[in-house]
Amino acid sequence: MTARPHDDPHVVIVGGGFGGLYAAKTLAKAGANVTVVDARNFHLFQPLLYQVATGGLSPGDIASPIRSVLKRAHRARVLHDEAIDVQAHERRVLLRDGAAALDYDLLIVATGSRTSYFGHDDWAVRAPGLKTVEDAIEMRSRVLGAFERAEMEPDHVRRAALLTFVIIGGGPTGVELAGAVAELARSALARDFRRFDPRDARVLLLEGGERILPSFPPELSARAVRSLEHLGAQVWTGAMVTDVDGEGVEVRRGNASERMAAATMLWAAGVTATSFGEVVATRFGATRDRGGRMRVTPHLTLPGRDDVYVIGDLALVDGPGGRPLPGVAPVAMQQGAYVARRILGRTEGPFRYRDKGQMAVIGRNAAVCDLPLARFSGFPAWVLWLFIHIAYLIEFDNKVLVLVQWAFAYVTRERGARLITANPR
Amino acid sequence: MTARPHDDPHVVIVGGGFGGLYAAKTLAKAGANVTVVDARNFHLFQPLLYQVATGGLSPGDIASPIRSVLKRAHRARVLHDEAIDVQAHERRVLLRDGAAALDYDLLIVATGSRTSYFGHDDWAVRAPGLKTVEDAIEMRSRVLGAFERAEMEPDHVRRAALLTFVIIGGGPTGVELAGAVAELARSALARDFRRFDPRDARVLLLEGGERILPSFPPELSARAVRSLEHLGAQVWTGAMVTDVDGEGVEVRRGNASERMAAATMLWAAGVTATSFGEVVATRFGATRDRGGRMRVTPHLTLPGRDDVYVIGDLALVDGPGGRPLPGVAPVAMQQGAYVARRILGRTEGPFRYRDKGQMAVIGRNAAVCDLPLARFSGFPAWVLWLFIHIAYLIEFDNKVLVLVQWAFAYVTRERGARLITANPR
Repeated sequence: MTARPHDDPHVVIVGGGFGGLYAAKTLAKAGANVTVVDARNFHLFQPLLYQVATGGLSPGDIASPIRSVLKRAHRARVLHDEAIDVQAHERRVLLRDGAAALDYDLLIVATGSRTSYFGHDDWAVRAPGLKTVEDAIEMRSRVLGAFERAEMEPDHVRRAALLTFVIIGGGPTGVELAGAVAELARSALARDFRRFDPRDARVLLLEGGERILPSFPPELSARAVRSLEHLGAQVWTGAMVTDVDGEGVEVRRGNASERMAAATMLWAAGVTATSFGEVVATRFGATRDRGGRMRVTPHLTLPGRDDVYVIGDLALVDGPGGRPLPGVAPVAMQQGAYVARRILGRTEGPFRYRDKGQMAVIGRNAAVCDLPLARFSGFPAWVLWLFIHIAYLIEFDNKVLVLVQWAFAYVTRERGARLITANPR
Repeated sequence: MTARPHDDPHVVIVGGGFGGLYAAKTLAKAGANVTVVDARNFHLFQPLLYQVATGGLSPGDIASPIRSVLKRAHRARVLHDEAIDVQAHERRVLLRDGAAALDYDLLIVATGSRTSYFGHDDWAVRAPGLKTVEDAIEMRSRVLGAFERAEMEPDHVRRAALLTFVIIGGGPTGVELAGAVAELARSALARDFRRFDPRDARVLLLEGGERILPSFPPELSARAVRSLEHLGAQVWTGAMVTDVDGEGVEVRRGNASERMAAATMLWAAGVTATSFGEVVATRFGATRDRGGRMRVTPHLTLPGRDDVYVIGDLALVDGPGGRPLPGVAPVAMQQGAYVARRILGRTEGPFRYRDKGQMAVIGRNAAVCDLPLARFSGFPAWVLWLFIHIAYLIEFDNKVLVLVQWAFAYVTRERGARLITANPR
């Protein structure tokens, strides 16, 4: 069995996230005939999106045009279009705008995930998720707008609701958002208002499970709670959100149910497959888990389909111990590079994830790191987090800029990108 | 006559642009009781907005939260709200969201200008102007989107239309946009596409008058034309736009009329008073010129109204030689500072504009400077432009960041903020 149907296959990659772009870079460098299709013209450095949502960075700081990443590869094409369907028999991807369809010899499906509200899609307008630049801008406008409205609100009950920020979901994104909003209130905005003290803002992180950061060891979850509390945030575990409306949230803890008035609710509780991922699963009859992820072979192809690879958040792959690999950037990057190497005939074996550990940042000088050889938290974890993210950003697109902004923010405790802009929806 | 109705007047400043914010800073520093009202939560460094529109900078790089500028002044309040009306007799400003109205002893009207289509408001959706962050994002999405669509367009006639960029209005903003779009096509995007060479893009600057940059000396206008042509842009003077539709523009030159197919049209042809400016003029019976500017006394008050100052783009003030002062940042800044000094009792004389000259940048290494003691262009003008803009940015909000991005862009010829995002309207 070979992964190359003929000598110079046309590889179509749908999605320019970590998985798709790492595959594209490796293939393009080898001179392969590759086309990347993405509905957006830029690759987004998702792990830092929460900093855009909280005014620390601008979208441009964490976005790289897919074209410039591939501009030196003359046989690599980039199409700024949305893949809407796939014809298995014809080996063809249908695009929304493109006049012609796109024929492939090999297809890499890497469109990732989108926010899921577990059947409560009406919550989306009340509690935005954090997957796109527009999401981040929306969150930023809501968070900063709540403080602004509080300054104009004479009624102290309504003001308290305006100064209550509920973050739903205790995974890394929820923890990072809670930490960043708490820090925003306590440092960057500390002296900005006259009618209230922003340090009185209530930041509440709700997690349905037993502990936040469930993929981390328990002691690091506990450390994260302490760090968040140190920043003035509160953490509720075993707290199921049963309703989200214009006035706040309803939360059930054990048998007790409680309403909480809040103007700002941020959703970090779950993701599911993108719509193109769903279409692919349907067309090829793939087996999916509850989160919409497709079961793939050890070579990351769909079973019985040597010409279709699925990588990143869309792929269900068992890691060591039989637990599925998480939907995080390092997994997607390694899968992208693996698939490219396989297509180039450079590897025959199955995909193996090299687990370099996981980390989550809580705020200034505070993070948790769970590495294969060590677990630690606090300042050293934060320095390591910083170092790794800067290294990736610089390797990827020379985003030295972010370093300068962080250095500046660290010294001044300011946030440089505090814009409330028109609702982009 | 004194400008101080009593010892500690409440000064209300409507508008946080250059005029309003310079007045606010001076007043706040002196411990005055001052309230700034702005519909946006940030001050925008307008002179660099064209760089956001062309992917060179992010909005956050040229925006400063009004609150952080004034955070050290405990008697300065900032209201994130829109002033919609004024009651002259009650000395009261009405706000859109605010529960209570805002009473003033002294009012400074500094809401500036907005894009004007000279009665053709239906052109606005086809040829966006450049006054707000949203405008700039819209322009950026259209310019970059046109290149993306051209890459997918097999028909060469339609592709030519997609690669035609028409900039309407030959003042500094039009010149800067034309230069930046031409440079984007020739350098940053040069190797990004496969179906066409971005250097073939047609950038056309249309000016109705006899020459571009009409406020500059003729020889600098000629220099600017040469610099633009060097970048591959074309300049048409005496070219009146008679229609703008979904397919392009209709242009009249002399007796000949011509249709030009273009996917992207950018409007830099004119401004008029903001709606609050119009309301103020109506309520106080102010005399206005064609551009909606209010005739003010030499002390920048409305005639017969010692308690109402009008500054910046809204004020019609004669400069040396009897020509009205232009609606540019230095005029607004000096007027803001003057009004503040007058309110503080530090000056009695009329406002006098210290003309430090004017400049416009065309592109990499190319600008024109018209200073009181010298006129020059090319590289030295560009260096001076750079130096002055960085100095202002740093003085204002320590935006060292912009310097880093410019240095980086200069070396790499890249554009760091090339995002096509959802239409913010």
